[in-house]
Amino acid sequence: MLTAAQNELLTLTGPDTDMGRVFRAYWQPVLLSREIEAEGAPKRVKILGEEFVAFRNGRGEVGVVEPGCPHRGANLFFGRNEHEGLRCVYHGWQFDVGGRCIDVPTADAKVAESIKPRAALRALSVKESCGIVWVHFTDGAGEIPQFDFMGLPEDHYFVSKKLQECNWAQAAEGGIDTAHFSYLHANIEDGERAGLMPSAGANEPPELARYRWMIEDSRPRFTVLEHETGLVMCAARKADDDQLYWRLTQFMMPNHSMAPNSFPGDNHVGNTWVPIDDHSCWIYCYAYNPERPLSDQERHAFTSGFGIFSEVDDEFVPVRNRGNDYLIDRNLQRYGNFTGITGISEQDAAIADSQGFIADRTRELLGQTDLGVVRFRELMFEAVDAVRQGRPPRGSETPRSYRVRSGDAMSAEPAEALQVVQKRFGELGGVNLSVIGR
Amino acid sequence: MLTAAQNELLTLTGPDTDMGRVFRAYWQPVLLSREIEAEGAPKRVKILGEEFVAFRNGRGEVGVVEPGCPHRGANLFFGRNEHEGLRCVYHGWQFDVGGRCIDVPTADAKVAESIKPRAALRALSVKESCGIVWVHFTDGAGEIPQFDFMGLPEDHYFVSKKLQECNWAQAAEGGIDTAHFSYLHANIEDGERAGLMPSAGANEPPELARYRWMIEDSRPRFTVLEHETGLVMCAARKADDDQLYWRLTQFMMPNHSMAPNSFPGDNHVGNTWVPIDDHSCWIYCYAYNPERPLSDQERHAFTSGFGIFSEVDDEFVPVRNRGNDYLIDRNLQRYGNFTGITGISEQDAAIADSQGFIADRTRELLGQTDLGVVRFRELMFEAVDAVRQGRPPRGSETPRSYRVRSGDAMSAEPAEALQVVQKRFGELGGVNLSVIGR
Amino acid sequence: MLTAAQNELLTLTGPDTDMGRVFRAYWQPVLLSREIEAEGAPKRVKILGEEFVAFRNGRGEVGVVEPGCPHRGANLFFGRNEHEGLRCVYHGWQFDVGGRCIDVPTADAKVAESIKPRAALRALSVKESCGIVWVHFTDGAGEIPQFDFMGLPEDHYFVSKKLQECNWAQAAEGGIDTAHFSYLHANIEDGERAGLMPSAGANEPPELARYRWMIEDSRPRFTVLEHETGLVMCAARKADDDQLYWRLTQFMMPNHSMAPNSFPGDNHVGNTWVPIDDHSCWIYCYAYNPERPLSDQERHAFTSGFGIFSEVDDEFVPVRNRGNDYLIDRNLQRYGNFTGITGISEQDAAIADSQGFIADRTRELLGQTDLGVVRFRELMFEAVDAVRQGRPPRGSETPRSYRVRSGDAMSAEPAEALQVVQKRFGELGGVNLSVIGR
Repeated sequence: MLTAAQNELLTLTGPDTDMGRVFRAYWQPVLLSREIEAEGAPKRVKILGEEFVAFRNGRGEVGVVEPGCPHRGANLFFGRNEHEGLRCVYHGWQFDVGGRCIDVPTADAKVAESIKPRAALRALSVKESCGIVWVHFTDGAGEIPQFDFMGLPEDHYFVSKKLQECNWAQAAEGGIDTAHFSYLHANIEDGERAGLMPSAGANEPPELARYRWMIEDSRPRFTVLEHETGLVMCAARKADDDQLYWRLTQFMMPNHSMAPNSFPGDNHVGNTWVPIDDHSCWIYCYAYNPERPLSDQERHAFTSGFGIFSEVDDEFVPVRNRGNDYLIDRNLQRYGNFTGITGISEQDAAIADSQGFIADRTRELLGQTDLGVVRFRELMFEAVDAVRQGRPPRGSETPRSYRVRSGDAMSAEPAEALQVVQKRFGELGGVNLSVIGR
Repeated sequence: MLTAAQNELLTLTGPDTDMGRVFRAYWQPVLLSREIEAEGAPKRVKILGEEFVAFRNGRGEVGVVEPGCPHRGANLFFGRNEHEGLRCVYHGWQFDVGGRCIDVPTADAKVAESIKPRAALRALSVKESCGIVWVHFTDGAGEIPQFDFMGLPEDHYFVSKKLQECNWAQAAEGGIDTAHFSYLHANIEDGERAGLMPSAGANEPPELARYRWMIEDSRPRFTVLEHETGLVMCAARKADDDQLYWRLTQFMMPNHSMAPNSFPGDNHVGNTWVPIDDHSCWIYCYAYNPERPLSDQERHAFTSGFGIFSEVDDEFVPVRNRGNDYLIDRNLQRYGNFTGITGISEQDAAIADSQGFIADRTRELLGQTDLGVVRFRELMFEAVDAVRQGRPPRGSETPRSYRVRSGDAMSAEPAEALQVVQKRFGELGGVNLSVIGR
Repeated sequence: MLTAAQNELLTLTGPDTDMGRVFRAYWQPVLLSREIEAEGAPKRVKILGEEFVAFRNGRGEVGVVEPGCPHRGANLFFGRNEHEGLRCVYHGWQFDVGGRCIDVPTADAKVAESIKPRAALRALSVKESCGIVWVHFTDGAGEIPQFDFMGLPEDHYFVSKKLQECNWAQAAEGGIDTAHFSYLHANIEDGERAGLMPSAGANEPPELARYRWMIEDSRPRFTVLEHETGLVMCAARKADDDQLYWRLTQFMMPNHSMAPNSFPGDNHVGNTWVPIDDHSCWIYCYAYNPERPLSDQERHAFTSGFGIFSEVDDEFVPVRNRGNDYLIDRNLQRYGNFTGITGISEQDAAIADSQGFIADRTRELLGQTDLGVVRFRELMFEAVDAVRQGRPPRGSETPRSYRVRSGDAMSAEPAEALQVVQKRFGELGGVNLSVIGR
């Protein structure tokens, strides 16, 4: 439970907010590379409550600049995207990807040269990697976070995004809360909760049995570890034969997560929640397999909506969304699955949206299964303190510490979470991994 | 004419308003029974500016509870409606129709027992009668108002509702203003105002002649009587042969009315205006015949839009509404009826909406035909005084005084309204009936 | 560049604003005559932030009155428009085109006579001329502005209007900014900007060559002249053989302009930007030929969208508008025209809207091609000073000074703008024409 002031501190990310200053200390995804073509249509972009126009010039470089032409304020979204940069269609002033004014055709040469330096657009720093365009609000920022998939061949990963119509923080809190799997994503069979996959009987492999274990044990025991760039949420459920089934979720500052549904050999998936404004966010989603290319069938599934990927329209707006109550089907809810909503991603989206545009955290009853959420908030407030004191927040200057991995594990009971993570992931568990408070 | 402060006092019914406190001293309709099925879809409800979720459990009992789960604030509208009550789909906490938390599957048994008492939902008191679900904002409230139709066999009455997109008070003022019948509901024949029913010539019965009399006399003389639970508006028009034609309208605190269009043997109809918020209300509508079952033809007419019943869609939103200017047809207005709008109910709705979302009563020119409206406002302000002084407002503790009846009557001229009402209705005219101020 | 306070002063025209008082000192177009028929549908009208209802009585006279009936505030838009005037459909009170209450059927004759004088509607002064209904906010105002086309036979002119979804002032500034023609309205041929009309080679007449000159010289030299009722913006571009090509634009206080694209014999066109509220305006558009009737083909083109006329729907809302990004086609923008938007008028609308609902003039870099815009603002502020001091603003009492003409001209280089205008238009250049500041 937070005070009203703490809730505002956690959730608001506009230019004049503390958390806004935290976010502006990190690189953030702003577009998928495939959203803008060389000399193609400029794109309106809103991030952290600020509006920009993004475009790709004839050399393939990307600019993310303020929308208003310095001459008379016409919007550069309507600009003509030429080889050297974006040209305002009102009077023809032109700007390159760095926001520099490179042509002032309404003035003679000498006057134009004196105008250009005063006519620069505010431009964000831009880097592009693995299908995602990243921005930083300050010049000279270092490397983007080096996620696990970034070193892989192009055919090993898939990236997409989806619109979420609520504040970023409650959506992120859903992503690091594995306890809800026992209900939100359950199926219904014969009137009872059931796993997403049917139970396989004798010699059931853990890859299938985990869905049953999640239904049978709705009270996972949480341990939260910390590392140089974030947290590992470790949730242990009773499995068969005195074993424990662990779901190990990564959170990397300030808004990245990797989901826990991967035994060795499985695909890995992760999310990044990027505030558009205080009432909506883009969720960037990626899937990868460290060991093999993704199959066409897998890519097709991710594109059509599967797991953390929503079924989206051409603008990456989920087909089942807040405006249509996620096409909830009460008959399905009675006989087919627990929510009556189709799609894991859509179930997550529905419940996050349902908390309001900004969840009211002044009325909560947190229990031990909410420990991950509690630690997440502490970490965010720690980052606010850092920025207030002029220190770089956790992870912002250690891009290589983002190379972590999440997934499932089995252990005997009892077991220590720290050992389970180290055994499962080795150094990919996180740099300087430790139990919080020890 | 009211001051701006009086107008706010009359119209605003949110939780922190004086009139809101008046309304919360009475039972109010919140749903039609047929809107929620046992173990069916929960329904979003907004009443007096506050949001709730309504559901019917497997035993047929109805709950009307606050929407946010006490655990993490997920909205219970998305909840799974099971036999014992509504289960939050985020982590499976469950609540019964009284708002009591009855299952906390994320905690072990002992912890769960300690959480449950702290996890109760705010729940309204609920009673259901004759197809309507009523709520009271305080526990232990007495009986719901005992309307005249409530003692009848089920086949003698019909209930429905319709959305009105303006403040409740001006819609109610339209309902107790019988003067407007001479214009708003007039037909046009040969370019002149005419009755809704064609005149029947010699030996025309009063049931038909009343439509002609309402056109011929647009200056009804008003007398307002009071009784234990409200008012009787008595409007006398000149009829044929030195007779008077009376329209006798009941108003029952704080928002009920019975319409005056019933000679002995006719059906009776009534309305209740329930604030959704300050800019919209649900109008509950009922028709009944004390002496016989309603025919299938009558039920079909009420369902399709007839008299006080609008033609509505599946969500009880009128087909002809504010958003489409009630499909006003200017050609019809010239040659067919006075408004160019089809439907008595729709004509009433249009004119109430047209006064603005909240009518500006600081600019009015009230005359003697507006006497009913003046008395209504006085009665509402009297109730505010009562509640401010801790007394129960009129009618709130005398549910049996709501058994009144309205209708038409004929008399010789001159006649006293009090005698006309007593002769027409007997004790159904109202308990302790008297002329105001005597 | 303006201060924030100056920007508000220039743009806001509601009842309690300085610029609102300036506008209320002038006659303003409020409807096209063809929008209201005798005894036809009343029409909702909003002008300068105030709402009215307009109607035409059985004698063809037009009333523009406040919408609320003085009796109970019902909206007279729903009124029945009868021969003598508009009748409220609630209780039948009737009002003539001057707002006088002429019937109170709810009261007896004597009481009615005492009510009528207190029941007058606020009514604007109305005059109708050449297909446009004009209003003035004060009684006894003089003549409407006597535009050049107003003395012509009816078949010599055409009037229409179109909705613009931004503040009036930035739309007007677009109309008096001829510099943008070199870009905003350019075509693209072989990847390069090109004139709207293909170049005609040897002996190319100036009527065609002007489109080439506007592309070849994007730095017109501005001189601004003033006259009794406004300004003449004179923009000189290099033409062939040491000649100058002049575009001469008229601006008449407070919101009228005549466009510069007319050599002798061509049609003339003009615009009036009438604030609906601070975020939208109606642009009244007219075309005329002083020397001959307009052809059917020309009328058809104006109706379908041509030059300053937009392609509009039945309510005069442009088909290509803010809500659909003017159906911008990025392929067209690359290969066909500079904006990718079809229609000169739509290109102007897009760029004005793109500046925001109210352009932020506190961030601008004005150059010599913006001189017309600078002078326009000075003139508007001069009018504010006049009204503050109780003097009539420029032009408001000299309706005949609005008979001016705009167009193109050729001259040798160098040339004085004053002589160019006088030679081209004679006395139609403007009353007491002079160079500002001399």
